[in-house]
Amino acid sequence: MRKLYHYPISPFSRKVRVMLAEKELPCEVIIENFWERRREFLAMNPAAQVPVLKEADGSIYADSTAICEYLDERYGDDPQYSLIGRSVGERAETRRIAAWFNNKFYYEVTKYILDEKVYKHYRRQGEPDSGAIRAAKSNILYHLDYIAHLTREHKWLAGERYSIADITAASHISVLDYFSDVPWNHSPAVKEWYALAKSRPGFRLVLEERIPGFRPPSYYDNPDF
Amino acid sequence: MRKLYHYPISPFSRKVRVMLAEKELPCEVIIENFWERRREFLAMNPAAQVPVLKEADGSIYADSTAICEYLDERYGDDPQYSLIGRSVGERAETRRIAAWFNNKFYYEVTKYILDEKVYKHYRRQGEPDSGAIRAAKSNILYHLDYIAHLTREHKWLAGERYSIADITAASHISVLDYFSDVPWNHSPAVKEWYALAKSRPGFRLVLEERIPGFRPPSYYDNPDF
Repeated sequence: MRKLYHYPISPFSRKVRVMLAEKELPCEVIIENFWERRREFLAMNPAAQVPVLKEADGSIYADSTAICEYLDERYGDDPQYSLIGRSVGERAETRRIAAWFNNKFYYEVTKYILDEKVYKHYRRQGEPDSGAIRAAKSNILYHLDYIAHLTREHKWLAGERYSIADITAASHISVLDYFSDVPWNHSPAVKEWYALAKSRPGFRLVLEERIPGFRPPSYYDNPDF
Repeated sequence: MRKLYHYPISPFSRKVRVMLAEKELPCEVIIENFWERRREFLAMNPAAQVPVLKEADGSIYADSTAICEYLDERYGDDPQYSLIGRSVGERAETRRIAAWFNNKFYYEVTKYILDEKVYKHYRRQGEPDSGAIRAAKSNILYHLDYIAHLTREHKWLAGERYSIADITAASHISVLDYFSDVPWNHSPAVKEWYALAKSRPGFRLVLEERIPGFRPPSYYDNPDF
């Protein structure tokens, strides 16, 4: 059986879970407290990051973007079903936007919230730094405007088809939403796009999960908000 | 004519320049002081990051990893010449290692050095923070050990063939070497791998460039050290 070592509120884990669901690939999910740096886990991924995918044949895949590329290459023979795109140009645009959320959005928004609210709590490193939280809450507005801008041009972020760009962005947004850190009133267009993304395969599974000590708002796993 | 908007000591720019040279794709290079956030540059890449590739037909590509994937797809019809890899497994491993240097190495080493030594200087933000420089100098040792470990298993980082994993890692190392921040005595294996990487197409062009106010050590652009 295929196994995914993940952590429920890692946006990178969520992205791969949704990708697996889109490809209809069954998978046993195993929660990995990656910050504990378990020996067997480090042997699979010396970067000590989730997610890590272990195929039934024992082959191991790490780095969420490399895993998504792998899944699309290995289980997407028909380019019609590629979640990266069909044409070379479409694929470049999808990857550009996915990278925006994997890197820029992560370091400007998600990382602040997770580090301050969650990982500090689990590592008993004290109270959240209010300056860092404020920075994240201010930075997210510009990113929501960017999502709104992209959805004015197309149905989905990278074009007319749902892609890894949407999966990546929605994974980050869903993590922030767990902590009530998405100002939904800021942009109706973003809310509309996210409601569509939430109704895609895989998101239900992702939104069902809870982590100890933190409870999401009531609308969090409602696909219609 | 194809154009690359780049900055000489951006490891991400270097990676794309070397990729273009490996594919024998001629290109006009234009220095972009990306931190000035030039209006026309932001229109090409709202992330305000270098490099940006503009093809002769006017199409625009941003995000260095998306650009490398694009170049390999568009100009690598023969999988024999792919710089990502031939088999699905080889491609996953190449992408994993490239991501290690694009993300982990960048945030643990390169970014500290560039921010503190170069961008603070250009933005007149004062003296480098010695704590950040010390962190980078300490962190790099573990990454050099990882390179040594990988080259004990294969000729190149991701296998027996030169790939985007080597291009990415060597681009970062070359930037640090510009500022004499690579402790070459730490690992003969790394030195040997880097000497091979430096002799590949594209690296000569990259190592010829200088930035105002900073001069690299004398051995910097010597392919034999």
